[in-house]
Amino acid sequence: MVDVEQSLRLIKRGADELLIEAELIERLKTGRPLRVKAGFDPTAPDLHLGHTVLINKLRHFQELGHHVMFLIGDFTGLIGDPTGKNATRPPLSREQILENAATYREQVFKILDPEKTEVCFNSAWFDGLGAAGMIRLAAQHTVARMLERDDFSKRYASGQPIAVHEFLYPLCQGYDSVAMRADVELGGTDQKFNLLVGRELQKHYGQAPQCVLMMPLLEGLDGVNKMSKSLGNYVGINEPPREIFGKIMSVSDDLMWRYYDLLSFRDGAEISRFKADVAKGRNPRDIKVLLAQELVTRFHAARDAEDALADFEARFRQGALPDDLQDVLLDNGGAPMSIVQALRQAGLTASTSEAIRMIEQGGVRADSEKVADKGVVLPVGVAVVLQVGKRKFARVCVN
Amino acid sequence: MVDVEQSLRLIKRGADELLIEAELIERLKTGRPLRVKAGFDPTAPDLHLGHTVLINKLRHFQELGHHVMFLIGDFTGLIGDPTGKNATRPPLSREQILENAATYREQVFKILDPEKTEVCFNSAWFDGLGAAGMIRLAAQHTVARMLERDDFSKRYASGQPIAVHEFLYPLCQGYDSVAMRADVELGGTDQKFNLLVGRELQKHYGQAPQCVLMMPLLEGLDGVNKMSKSLGNYVGINEPPREIFGKIMSVSDDLMWRYYDLLSFRDGAEISRFKADVAKGRNPRDIKVLLAQELVTRFHAARDAEDALADFEARFRQGALPDDLQDVLLDNGGAPMSIVQALRQAGLTASTSEAIRMIEQGGVRADSEKVADKGVVLPVGVAVVLQVGKRKFARVCVN
Repeated sequence: MVDVEQSLRLIKRGADELLIEAELIERLKTGRPLRVKAGFDPTAPDLHLGHTVLINKLRHFQELGHHVMFLIGDFTGLIGDPTGKNATRPPLSREQILENAATYREQVFKILDPEKTEVCFNSAWFDGLGAAGMIRLAAQHTVARMLERDDFSKRYASGQPIAVHEFLYPLCQGYDSVAMRADVELGGTDQKFNLLVGRELQKHYGQAPQCVLMMPLLEGLDGVNKMSKSLGNYVGINEPPREIFGKIMSVSDDLMWRYYDLLSFRDGAEISRFKADVAKGRNPRDIKVLLAQELVTRFHAARDAEDALADFEARFRQGALPDDLQDVLLDNGGAPMSIVQALRQAGLTASTSEAIRMIEQGGVRADSEKVADKGVVLPVGVAVVLQVGKRKFARVCVN
Repeated sequence: MVDVEQSLRLIKRGADELLIEAELIERLKTGRPLRVKAGFDPTAPDLHLGHTVLINKLRHFQELGHHVMFLIGDFTGLIGDPTGKNATRPPLSREQILENAATYREQVFKILDPEKTEVCFNSAWFDGLGAAGMIRLAAQHTVARMLERDDFSKRYASGQPIAVHEFLYPLCQGYDSVAMRADVELGGTDQKFNLLVGRELQKHYGQAPQCVLMMPLLEGLDGVNKMSKSLGNYVGINEPPREIFGKIMSVSDDLMWRYYDLLSFRDGAEISRFKADVAKGRNPRDIKVLLAQELVTRFHAARDAEDALADFEARFRQGALPDDLQDVLLDNGGAPMSIVQALRQAGLTASTSEAIRMIEQGGVRADSEKVADKGVVLPVGVAVVLQVGKRKFARVCVN
C-alpha cells in the first residue's frame, strides 16, 4: 500500500502550484505507477541548477515508483524559428538534435535513474500527424482563449506582432500529453497556460486530464533574478567542482534555504533540524558547506566534494579578515596613489623601501590577490584590503 | 503581338476590382500564357448561374490564350469542420470528392474548354506538407493581421468564438497560389482578404505576387439578394430548358443588363447596341429573349432554346393581358366568394349558369391557370385576374 499522504508531501515540496490536488490523490490511491512527463527544449543542453529543479522533481516521482518520461521537443527544434527573425533559433538538424539529446542524457542521468527513465522525442508523433492533423488540432482552441495567455495578451495589446504559428505551439505541447498519456506534467510557473491546454486536449481525446505540477523558477546566485546564463548568476552542472562549491558558498543564508528546498535531496525533517540548529546559534556556513558538498557530489563525485571543501577552507583561511580590520583613509588630494606609498602611509610597512621589498618577496596582497608589481597604483575612492605577511591588514581608500 | 488593351478590357468586364492593374498589364505584355487560378469548394457541385460568373471569367482568359487552372479544394474537404459543431460540413471521403469533382467537370465544361483547362486538387501539395510545413506556413502571418479580416474582427469584437484553425485556411488558400505558381487568382469580392494572403505568401516564397481579380456576387432573380439556393432566387445550370428560359424572362430590365455583363458571351459592343436599341424604343423583352436563348443553348442546346422560346411565346400569348384590364372590387361583406358568383358580378358572364357552363367547357382561367372546378372560392383581399374565353378579362378582388 502506497502512503499517499507521504507521497504527496514529497511531490509538493518546493512546488508552486498543483492542479488538481484531489485528482492527483485519487490517482496516487490506485497504487499504479503514474506517467510523469516533463518537456525540454533541444536547443540548450548545457544545464545549470535552474534547469535541475524540474529534474529533481522527476527524481522524487522516480523515488516514489512512478514512470518518468523525459521529453525532448525535437519536433519544434527541427522547425526552428520559421519567421526567420530570431537568428538565435535556427532550425536544428536531426544530427544536432541527437547530439544534444546525448548531452542531455549524460547530464540528467546524474540526477535521474537511467533504468527508470523513458526518453521521448515528440517528432515520433508529429512527423505522422500531417498538415490535416495540425488543422484538426488547431480547431480545438479558440483565438480568444489563446489571447488570454499573459504574454500574448500583452503583446497584442501593445501592438507587438504575434505570428499565427505561435498559437500552434501550446497545442503541440498539449498534444504531447495526449500522445504520452501523461498522468502528471511538470513545468515552470511560466508554463501554466500551456500545461492547462494539455488538460483540455486530453479531455477532447477521451483521456483523464493530467495533473499539473508547477515548479518555481530558481533564483540565481544574486538571490533576486531568475538563474540564467545571460545574467551570469548561474551554477552550471558541468562546472568544475571547486567552482560549484565556491558559488554555493557565496549565496546568502536566505537563498541557501531556498536552494535546500529545491536542490537538495535531504529529507524535509533533516532540513528542519538544520534550521533549528542555526536558530540556536550554529554557523550557517557549516550548513552551506553541506549543500555545496551534496551538489558537487551529485555532479562530480564525493572525492571532488572533499577536495573542493579543502581548497575552499585553505583559501578561506588565507583570505579571512581579522575582526578588527582597520579602515584607513589616505588623503592624496584626489589623485591615485602608488601601492608603495599606500603601504607606508597605512602603517603596514615602516618605509617605502620595506614596502618594495615585501612586494618583491611576494608578501603583499590586495583584495586577496598577490601583488606582483611595485608599480601598481590605487585608484581614488575604491576601498581595497591590503595585507602584508600573514597578520597585517588594512582596508584603505585613497582620496 | 497580343493586344494588351483589348485583353484588359475583356478581363475587366463585369469585374469589381483588379489588383494590381499595372502588374497585370506588365504580365500581359510578355505575351506568355498566364497561369489563372480559381478555387472551388468540393462540397457543392450543383452549380447555379451565380457560380458561373467566375467560370465565365476563366473562359475569358481561356479565349485570350491563357492557362486556366480549376482548383478543387479537396484538402480542407477531407478535414470537414474539425470543431464538430457544423453538422452540415462533415468530412468528405476521397470517393465523395472524386464523385463531386466529376460532377463539377461535367458542369464547368459547358463553359470552359476541357482541352485548355487544368483541374487541380490541393491535396496534391498539402498531403506532403506535414505538420511542420503547416507551422512554417502559419509563421508567415500575424494574429493581428488575421483579426483585421472583416468577419474575424466582427466575431472577435462580439465575443463569438473563432477556432484557431480558421486562421490556417486563408494561409492554405494562399499556399495554393504558391504551389500553382498563379499569375492571376479570381475570386468573389468576399474573398479579398484571402486573395491578398496569396500575394504575400508568393512574395515570401520568392514568386512575383499574383494579380487578383474580384468578381461581384451575382444578384438573384429578385434583383436584390445574392443568388443562392436557400433563397430560391437562383437558376440552376442543370434545370430544364423551359425553366431556365422562363426564369430569365422574369427578371427586371435592369437586372437583365447586369446579367448581360456577367453571364453573356456577346461582346461589349453588341451589348451597347442592344442598349441603344432599347433607348430608341425597342421592346427590352426581345433582348431578354436573346439572353435566355444564349443561356439555354450554353447549358443544353440550340434546339432546346428554340423549343423553350416557342413554349414561352405560346404561354405568353395565352396569358397576355389586355392593356385596358379592368379592376373590379366585389363587395361580399368581408366573406370569400365562389368563382361562379365572381364571374357573374364582374360581368364576365351574363349569369351564374353561363359561368358554370364556361368552367365546365374549360374556358375560364384564374391567373392564367385553367379553372377545373366550379366549387373554387376566391379569398378576401387578394387580386385575381379572371379570364373567360380569349378576350374577356377582369382583375377582381373580393371584399
